[in-house]
Amino acid sequence: MTTLEEVRRRAENDARTYGYYLHPDPKFLKDLLEGLKRNEDRYGYPSCPCRLASGKFEFDRDILCPCDYRDPDVEEFGFCYCALYVRRDVYEGKTPIVPIPERRPLEKQARAYGEAPETTKQQATTPTVTEQPSNIEIKMWYCKQCGYVCFREDPPYVCPICKAKKEMFAEITIITRAYG
Amino acid sequence: MTTLEEVRRRAENDARTYGYYLHPDPKFLKDLLEGLKRNEDRYGYPSCPCRLASGKFEFDRDILCPCDYRDPDVEEFGFCYCALYVRRDVYEGKTPIVPIPERRPLEKQARAYGEAPETTKQQATTPTVTEQPSNIEIKMWYCKQCGYVCFREDPPYVCPICKAKKEMFAEITIITRAYG
Amino acid sequence: MTTLEEVRRRAENDARTYGYYLHPDPKFLKDLLEGLKRNEDRYGYPSCPCRLASGKFEFDRDILCPCDYRDPDVEEFGFCYCALYVRRDVYEGKTPIVPIPERRPLEKQARAYGEAPETTKQQATTPTVTEQPSNIEIKMWYCKQCGYVCFREDPPYVCPICKAKKEMFAEITIITRAYG
Repeated sequence: MTTLEEVRRRAENDARTYGYYLHPDPKFLKDLLEGLKRNEDRYGYPSCPCRLASGKFEFDRDILCPCDYRDPDVEEFGFCYCALYVRRDVYEGKTPIVPIPERRPLEKQARAYGEAPETTKQQATTPTVTEQPSNIEIKMWYCKQCGYVCFREDPPYVCPICKAKKEMFAEITIITRAYG
Repeated sequence: MTTLEEVRRRAENDARTYGYYLHPDPKFLKDLLEGLKRNEDRYGYPSCPCRLASGKFEFDRDILCPCDYRDPDVEEFGFCYCALYVRRDVYEGKTPIVPIPERRPLEKQARAYGEAPETTKQQATTPTVTEQPSNIEIKMWYCKQCGYVCFREDPPYVCPICKAKKEMFAEITIITRAYG
Repeated sequence: MTTLEEVRRRAENDARTYGYYLHPDPKFLKDLLEGLKRNEDRYGYPSCPCRLASGKFEFDRDILCPCDYRDPDVEEFGFCYCALYVRRDVYEGKTPIVPIPERRPLEKQARAYGEAPETTKQQATTPTVTEQPSNIEIKMWYCKQCGYVCFREDPPYVCPICKAKKEMFAEITIITRAYG
C-alpha cells in the first residue's frame, strides 16, 4: 500500500520537474495528499482528491493526479483545480487562491457518472485501438511542432515538451496485424 | 486570436518547465512576445520572432518557438538565438548577452526561402511518411538511452527527457497498410 | 571528443530541467564529471561513473547517466547512487549524503558482467524488436495515465512526464512487415 510519505514525495517530485510548488498551507496540503492516498487505496490509482471518481479507470483517466487540466489551469490561473499545484507567485501569497471553473468537459463528466448514452460509454473503454477483421488500428497523437508522441484518447491541452497548444497535435494511424 | 497575455503565459510556462528565465529587460521582452503574436496571427503558428518564416508550416517547423535550436543554444551560450529564453546567470546579468551564431542548417534556410532545388523542397512536405503501392512507411525516432519516441523529420539536438545527444537517436520504421 | 566542459554543461542542463542540483562539493563533482568523460571516451557513451560498465551498449543502457535509477533514488533519498544529482535540501546540506542501496536489479548486473546463462544474455540484444518470418514485432510502452510513449526494454521506474509509477505502463505491440 502506498504511504502518505510516498504520495507526498511523488507530488514534490512532480512539482520540481515543472517548476511548480505545492499548496502553501501545510494543513490544507496534508488533506489533499490524504485524499490522494485514499483514492489510490480505494481505486488503485491516485485520482483527483477534489473530484468524484467513477472507479472505472477508463472514465477517470483524465482526472488522475496530475490531471489533464493541471497545466492549462496553472498557466491561466496560477494553480490547479484543487490548488495542490501552484505557481511561485501563488505560493508566495502574491496571487490569491480563488475557486476556478471546472475545465473537465461535460461529456467526460457525464460519461464517468453514468448519465451518458450507452454508445458513448463504450467508446471510452478502448479509446485508441480499433479491431478490424484481422487488423488492429492503433491511433497515436504527435505534436507537429516538436514531434512528441503519445497514446491517449485525446491530445493533451498543452504539449508537455514544447508547450504547443492542443491544436498542434495530429494523429498517426498504424494498422497492424492482429495476433493469432 | 491569441492575446499577448496568452503568448506571455505560454513562454513563462515553458521557461518554468526547463528552469529557464525570460529576457530580463521588460521592454525587449515585450517586443519579442509581440513578434511571436504577430507571427501567430499571420501564419497560424508562433514562429521565431528573430527569423524570417516562409509561411509554409513544413519549412518553418524547426523555427516554431521554442525552436529546435533553443536547448543546445541555452546549454552552450546561456540564451537562445533571440535571447527570449535565458539561463539564470544571464538573467542575473552575470553572463552578457551577445550575438551568437545561427545554428539552423543552411539547407533548411535555403529550403524555406525557396533557393533549394525542387526535389529538396518536396521532400520536406512529408518528412516521415512515405507512401508505397499499398503500404505507408512511418519513421519515428527513439532515444537509445531513455527510449523517448518522437515523430519528426530529424532527431532533436538533445533528448528532451534525458539530454542525450542527437547521435543517441535511432530510427524505428513501421510499415503499415494504406487506407482503402 | 567530448570535452569536460561539455560533460559539465549537459549535467547542469539536465539538473535544471528536473529541478535538481549537482553535488555541492566542487572537487567531488569534478571527479564524477571526469569519470563520465572517461567512460564516454572509452565506450562511446557516458555510463555511470560509479558503476562498472560492460562495454556492450545493450547491457549498459540502464546505467547511462542519467541512469534509470536516478529519479526514484532522488525521490526516495534526495540524491542518486553517485550523488551527482541531488535535491535542493541535500545541496544546501540539510540532508546528509550517505551510501544508498543499489537499485539496479541483480539480473541486469549479472547479464552485464557475463554471469548470466546464455539465453538471458541474448534476450538483451534486441529487447523490443522480434523478427518473425516476414514480420517484425515492435513493442513500445505507454503510460496509461498521460499517454507518454517510449521504446525500451522495460518501462521506466517513473513516467518522466506525469510521474506515474512503473505499474501504470502497458505495452503496445505493432506487427510490421519486414523489409525486402
